[in-house]
Amino acid sequence: MNCTIITIGDELLIGQTIDTNSAWIGQELNKMGIRILQRLAIGDDEAQIKNALSNSAKVSSLIILTGGLGPTKDDITKKTIAEYFGVGFTFYEEVWQKMITIFEKRGKDVLEMNRGQAMLPSNATMLPNKRGTAQGMWFDEGDVVYISLPGVPHEMKHLMETHVFSKLKERFVLSKIIHTTIMTAGGGESTIASLLSNFEASLPPYMKLAYLPELGVVKLRLSAYGDASEEEMLQKKNELVSTLPQYVYADTEIKLEEYLANKLKAKKHTLALAESCTGGYVAHLLTSIAGSSEFFHGGVVSYSYDMKMQILGVKQDTLTHYGAVSEECVIEMVKGILEQSKATYGIAISGIAGPGGATPDKPVGTVYIAVADKDNVEVKRFEFFPSRAENIKIFSNAALNMLRLFIDKSDKYSA
Amino acid sequence: MNCTIITIGDELLIGQTIDTNSAWIGQELNKMGIRILQRLAIGDDEAQIKNALSNSAKVSSLIILTGGLGPTKDDITKKTIAEYFGVGFTFYEEVWQKMITIFEKRGKDVLEMNRGQAMLPSNATMLPNKRGTAQGMWFDEGDVVYISLPGVPHEMKHLMETHVFSKLKERFVLSKIIHTTIMTAGGGESTIASLLSNFEASLPPYMKLAYLPELGVVKLRLSAYGDASEEEMLQKKNELVSTLPQYVYADTEIKLEEYLANKLKAKKHTLALAESCTGGYVAHLLTSIAGSSEFFHGGVVSYSYDMKMQILGVKQDTLTHYGAVSEECVIEMVKGILEQSKATYGIAISGIAGPGGATPDKPVGTVYIAVADKDNVEVKRFEFFPSRAENIKIFSNAALNMLRLFIDKSDKYSA
Repeated sequence: MNCTIITIGDELLIGQTIDTNSAWIGQELNKMGIRILQRLAIGDDEAQIKNALSNSAKVSSLIILTGGLGPTKDDITKKTIAEYFGVGFTFYEEVWQKMITIFEKRGKDVLEMNRGQAMLPSNATMLPNKRGTAQGMWFDEGDVVYISLPGVPHEMKHLMETHVFSKLKERFVLSKIIHTTIMTAGGGESTIASLLSNFEASLPPYMKLAYLPELGVVKLRLSAYGDASEEEMLQKKNELVSTLPQYVYADTEIKLEEYLANKLKAKKHTLALAESCTGGYVAHLLTSIAGSSEFFHGGVVSYSYDMKMQILGVKQDTLTHYGAVSEECVIEMVKGILEQSKATYGIAISGIAGPGGATPDKPVGTVYIAVADKDNVEVKRFEFFPSRAENIKIFSNAALNMLRLFIDKSDKYSA
Repeated sequence: MNCTIITIGDELLIGQTIDTNSAWIGQELNKMGIRILQRLAIGDDEAQIKNALSNSAKVSSLIILTGGLGPTKDDITKKTIAEYFGVGFTFYEEVWQKMITIFEKRGKDVLEMNRGQAMLPSNATMLPNKRGTAQGMWFDEGDVVYISLPGVPHEMKHLMETHVFSKLKERFVLSKIIHTTIMTAGGGESTIASLLSNFEASLPPYMKLAYLPELGVVKLRLSAYGDASEEEMLQKKNELVSTLPQYVYADTEIKLEEYLANKLKAKKHTLALAESCTGGYVAHLLTSIAGSSEFFHGGVVSYSYDMKMQILGVKQDTLTHYGAVSEECVIEMVKGILEQSKATYGIAISGIAGPGGATPDKPVGTVYIAVADKDNVEVKRFEFFPSRAENIKIFSNAALNMLRLFIDKSDKYSA
């Protein structure tokens, strides 16, 4: 069963508002087994709305519209829908009375232009909105269900949750979709894809694998349509995971920093950072997690030579002979932060994010990362290539991934 | 002139990825005087892509597609476009050679599946991509220009900026729009809007003011359509700036951290940070600027009591009596970081980003910020209200804005 989501509003087209409504609707309907065929954003324009409705009705059994239900002149969705169906309006006295009450409570006079909000196209089933003055509407016409909802996100969600989901389950026989997500780090999209080429070829036609690459992390989504059983899905998932032993860090959707946070908290271990080129971004990733003070002691962003020497105890000699972007320097940095913070683990990062700072043997994208606990230090050199902003993110994920592998290794030895 | 933006990818439909690409494209094209008629998100599906192309071509002179150009099996955009135009493929030897070089540098073998990325539909004009292996494509067919770009945001932006904008200006006669941007910090959208209500009412019908609020910063865009002269625009802009003397930090589009970076660099002044609740985010903002080592010494993310005492010299007594979220604590933090770093200016931030950590007199959203140089310290308490992620950003901008006003004041005294 196919669905089209139509969002209406000029502000969406010129990028003033980022459309999060249709992402949420897509996610929720998809979980119910409704396939989102397309999402369309159009302006507050009569011809465009009618055109979108008739085109979408040809390919969809369900059309969900959001936006354009406010009381002002540029909100034309309801009027246009009535014209599209060739129907008049019904006045809902109870809606009007409630609106008067709401306005009285806020100490405001209800305006004549709000009266229009108590009128619905005569073929509409009203979906009462307890969060605002724009009612939701359900139209069952021919083989197609049309649903019109306000664009304010919390009102839209409220109507979906209290009315739409249950009515859809009654109205349609929904096909089954199962999704499972596998998170990988340390390999690019093409590396992962080439390792998985046999696996992909082995998938039955009703199963599909999607690659969702971020900087340093590739999210894999395995989807099964229709006949696949939970067992078959689980089997395929296990097959996938065992094909990528060093890359998979979780078999559920979770960020790398959250995975590490859980791991550290479970063992009551702690972490501190010495960041140079990532400039506080790794600290930001970790402290974006609520409750991060449980495992995160803090860090030093040692951008200058002075800060490296003064706070982390990096030797003048090391900086002179090897430079700040060197194996020697990150080892001293990680030892320094472990000593200052008394954390279980330390990470130190020094590299060249660009665009300046490159040398012939250390091009932009070069980074040294050290991870350590009180007994061991491990250092790696990586070379990435994109621009400054991307380097900062990809370096940060590389550092977190090194810590993941370091912890796994020490767990293995201690097991 | 009408444009349709088509984003391709199953992950957009099921809401796993929020589409920020088309918002950015919409914003940029709108500035150039191109009207965005509609935005369409569809799956990696041949029939849908073809359908979207032919429907959009009926109503648009420009169609921009993003996504589906990767090397994997689910990336079918290029193949589908070739079929849509009924053309074959041309192999670009130079693209292939470059790809081999890139992979070699990374110590990896180029894969056979990457070879497909060196083939473009034979009617395409290649838009070379320096940031990745998927090339952009420009098709001028009939009255319609079709542009296909990779979905990775930084690659898409790079191609738009280096190729597409200039080619569009050559190819189309664009209607005249002038924009000017004014940056404000320290006031919310409604504060700014109420101060500007008379100004807004005085605007001629062909001028429009848009509010683009971010967390702690409100960007104002004044646009003039058609007949407005540069002089009139300048006059209105000056009027606007003089209405908001304490809020405007720049009359050109520049981030608050970049404005400060320029200011510090011009005077060869330096800055260091002591961050608690912002967890490295202010450091990240500053180090996202290329060349930030010129003015940024670094910082300490002192998340634990120990780090505050050990590195910044905050007294045990202060933490016991006043707590980490207090005027007393941020003053000691800022003095500590100034001493450790020898920077001209220091900023210290300690607050409650949430969701945990609140006390009756210090609710979530409370933050103390201190800015200082060797002679003076200034402290402020703010209370914001949104969630953790928003608090981290709004605290950070508040801190940068305090430094801006602090520097302005000392400039005034020394002048």
